[in-house]
Amino acid sequence: MELATRRTIKLTLAYEGAGFHGWQMQPEVPTIQGAVTDAVEAVTGERVPVDASGRTDTGVHALAQVASFRTVSAIPAASMVKALNRQLPPSVRVMAAEDAPAGFHARFHAKAKTYRYRIYRGGVCPPFVWRYTHHFPYALDEAAMIEAAPLFEGAHDFSSFASSKGRGGAELDELPERSKVRTVFVSRLVRDGEELVYMARGSGFLHHMVRNITGTLVEIGKGRVFPGDVPEILAARRRAAAGPTLPGKGLCLVSVEY
Amino acid sequence: MELATRRTIKLTLAYEGAGFHGWQMQPEVPTIQGAVTDAVEAVTGERVPVDASGRTDTGVHALAQVASFRTVSAIPAASMVKALNRQLPPSVRVMAAEDAPAGFHARFHAKAKTYRYRIYRGGVCPPFVWRYTHHFPYALDEAAMIEAAPLFEGAHDFSSFASSKGRGGAELDELPERSKVRTVFVSRLVRDGEELVYMARGSGFLHHMVRNITGTLVEIGKGRVFPGDVPEILAARRRAAAGPTLPGKGLCLVSVEY
Repeated sequence: MELATRRTIKLTLAYEGAGFHGWQMQPEVPTIQGAVTDAVEAVTGERVPVDASGRTDTGVHALAQVASFRTVSAIPAASMVKALNRQLPPSVRVMAAEDAPAGFHARFHAKAKTYRYRIYRGGVCPPFVWRYTHHFPYALDEAAMIEAAPLFEGAHDFSSFASSKGRGGAELDELPERSKVRTVFVSRLVRDGEELVYMARGSGFLHHMVRNITGTLVEIGKGRVFPGDVPEILAARRRAAAGPTLPGKGLCLVSVEY
Repeated sequence: MELATRRTIKLTLAYEGAGFHGWQMQPEVPTIQGAVTDAVEAVTGERVPVDASGRTDTGVHALAQVASFRTVSAIPAASMVKALNRQLPPSVRVMAAEDAPAGFHARFHAKAKTYRYRIYRGGVCPPFVWRYTHHFPYALDEAAMIEAAPLFEGAHDFSSFASSKGRGGAELDELPERSKVRTVFVSRLVRDGEELVYMARGSGFLHHMVRNITGTLVEIGKGRVFPGDVPEILAARRRAAAGPTLPGKGLCLVSVEY
């Protein structure tokens, strides 16, 4: 029985989103999933589905995305790190590989995720960070933004912050019932050197949700929206009630918890 | 008299070497000097020579390269930063622009330079640093390397560490007499997290000199050469006496002093 000998491998991946059309495999364009699937095939000889904790968009980075696949290969998990990295471009790295319990699935079993969004405030964005940060050198009331960030914490219907197009609005954890309710455990903005850094940890995030929350925080920084408006924006459950979507390159998936 | 109204502008540049064939303008390939010269022309309307403190090779980075050019443009220096950056790719940034005394020349007046060389020691090189560091995850006697680094300090004939081909051996400050004597004020290696970081500050550096010194330090780390051999290698004044040239991408011009 071939199935009886299949193992489940859990990969921890770091990648730079620049140069890729996001996680999800598509014909004709480079994607992270495509690169990892090709590498797994080259190493194991098997063309198998590689599932991530969730899809990331074009330009979005990951410090520790989690992916899983099933294989009959007997290669020790530790050896897979080197073997896969030999196949992958330097902008995609397998940081760790381990045997996971049978039935483990990177997407279905994710319990929480942490994202970071970086906004570069200095006048000139250095050449070593421009791929990883959204450059916004214009005036912002940062104190108002910092005050508003925690107002997104808690269990809310985040319809106002979900992408209005495609994917059913769910970036990372498309639930069967299409509920737009997510629980955000942490939503904080801090000034870190020349950057504003937004950190969000939650049960899951809708498609574009972090980029729409940070876009709304920028509107608050511009004085067009007030921190006190946040509950009303959430209650509206209309995408148009919230601010614009910030660029993907400022976003990074920091970790996934199981 | 047009010449009477010419100003000298001093630029401080940061750039990522990946994607460029070094500083010096060449036909058909992207170079830093080419990008900056084009930007100066777009902003001032003048095609003028843009001179740097010295040429950097393919893949070599700069945190604060200094360049100068002469112009009749009346644009305030402070406005040039934004105007030039609008023309340049995001991997090349003008960090500062200022009026320099008449006669100032970025190359001829440089008094000291500081370079950094990064060697990544961890097993997997993260996708966010691979462009800026030389990945060497194999065994090294780091204590011997750290002990040897200061032996390069002082005034020495660095012929053993000068590129054997082209350019007359002078990367940054080709002297008329072609002397290979340089004074190194600081030559130190430290462990910084997952990296070995080499810092050198000197009166000037020969072509490939920092990459050949670090290549020799790696040979010491491998146990093929001993720290006590350094004076002999210097005395040999033969390129073959020293270690190999490490890749350009680990090197960064940190600062230039006038």
